[in-house]
Amino acid sequence: MPVLKEHERIDDLQRNGYQIIQNTKKFCFGMDAVLLSGFAAARAGERVLDLGTGTGIIPILMEAKTEGEAFVGLEIQEEVADMAARSVALNHLEAKISIRTGDIKEASAIFGGASFDVVTSNPPYMKDSHGLKNPDPAKAIARHEVLCSLEDVVREAARILKPGGRFYMVHRPYRLPEIFMALQKHRIEPKRMKLVHPEADKEANMVLIEAVRGGRSQLTVEPPVIIFEAPGQYSREIRETYGY
Amino acid sequence: MPVLKEHERIDDLQRNGYQIIQNTKKFCFGMDAVLLSGFAAARAGERVLDLGTGTGIIPILMEAKTEGEAFVGLEIQEEVADMAARSVALNHLEAKISIRTGDIKEASAIFGGASFDVVTSNPPYMKDSHGLKNPDPAKAIARHEVLCSLEDVVREAARILKPGGRFYMVHRPYRLPEIFMALQKHRIEPKRMKLVHPEADKEANMVLIEAVRGGRSQLTVEPPVIIFEAPGQYSREIRETYGY
Repeated sequence: MPVLKEHERIDDLQRNGYQIIQNTKKFCFGMDAVLLSGFAAARAGERVLDLGTGTGIIPILMEAKTEGEAFVGLEIQEEVADMAARSVALNHLEAKISIRTGDIKEASAIFGGASFDVVTSNPPYMKDSHGLKNPDPAKAIARHEVLCSLEDVVREAARILKPGGRFYMVHRPYRLPEIFMALQKHRIEPKRMKLVHPEADKEANMVLIEAVRGGRSQLTVEPPVIIFEAPGQYSREIRETYGY
Repeated sequence: MPVLKEHERIDDLQRNGYQIIQNTKKFCFGMDAVLLSGFAAARAGERVLDLGTGTGIIPILMEAKTEGEAFVGLEIQEEVADMAARSVALNHLEAKISIRTGDIKEASAIFGGASFDVVTSNPPYMKDSHGLKNPDPAKAIARHEVLCSLEDVVREAARILKPGGRFYMVHRPYRLPEIFMALQKHRIEPKRMKLVHPEADKEANMVLIEAVRGGRSQLTVEPPVIIFEAPGQYSREIRETYGY
């Protein structure tokens, strides 16, 4: 049985009875990862790679929600990868999910070109030079582009995807122009986008994107996700689709 | 007094008592132009150019809604430009609004570089090769990129704007990746975006964009506009802000 380390706790994922280990001092997943796992699709027989998997939340939720055949989570921080692997074991999912320690920047070298049908990522959002960096290196690496940039993530996704393969990413809307530029530069064409607004009359604070390797340019902007329908009260979509 | 020509009628704009002439067979403005005139800002002393002004709806509504000092509408179709000029006269706005016949592709040659504080445009949305073209040439020119492309509009806007000047455009969301690409290529950086959804649970069918010449990359995605709150019933925002 997995053993919890200091500051770790086990949370219920409200899905298939699955649980996840989080470190309350260092690394907890956010609603962004949960929304991405609901936005992303994986069909029967498809192999899915999550770049920068952190706690492993995205592969674990996608295993529960989709028909995908195999899921791999790549995580650069040894101690975070170890925690994710213990969550996989906790749910007896070793046959379908594997966690690999490694660098996003070398992902295509590690796994090979055109090796996955689907790539997902909830990458660090903030430019290395932007905003106050978290003094805890584990948090800084997860949130700031200390070890990899948006460009690195998109380039590696493009190399790893089979032709026609799909890339799913959650990011901050303020970086959308750069995101589209990077996607188009690496020939993964944006096809679906969903903005997430904390309330109906507030600016978007997350964006979900699906892009297709070698797809033609034709974007669909889906209905927005509204998180709260009243102060402190999650909207019906958030409660029913995401189990909050 | 202006004389109406065949198939023309006068409509009330529900704003400052202004009226507009439209040709029911050839050319009527849409909600896109009305939304753009509410999204765009023009401050005291600023000069505004509307590329492809059609009926003149955008300069006329912006004259009513903003503090802008002078408005110019450029329209390639002689007979449409003549109709717009008669609307300007009908409202006694000749001192503030002028209509000029000319080609968007030559706009910076006509008006000179760095000559306006603000450029607006509700350009043709559809690629020349895309979809069924309207058999009426006046409608086809307004809707399809027969005479000018997205790239032409953005390039001319970039040339015409003063440094720090603002470009406001309404377009179709499916072309957003291309739009961002063109804006960034011509160094007018997207700063604000607003999606328009016909209903809260429907895909967006219009997008409003503000881009700044020489601005830095930092986009704000504003709360979406929802057109109908129930079948056939406009939302409060559409009724109160736009007078529908």
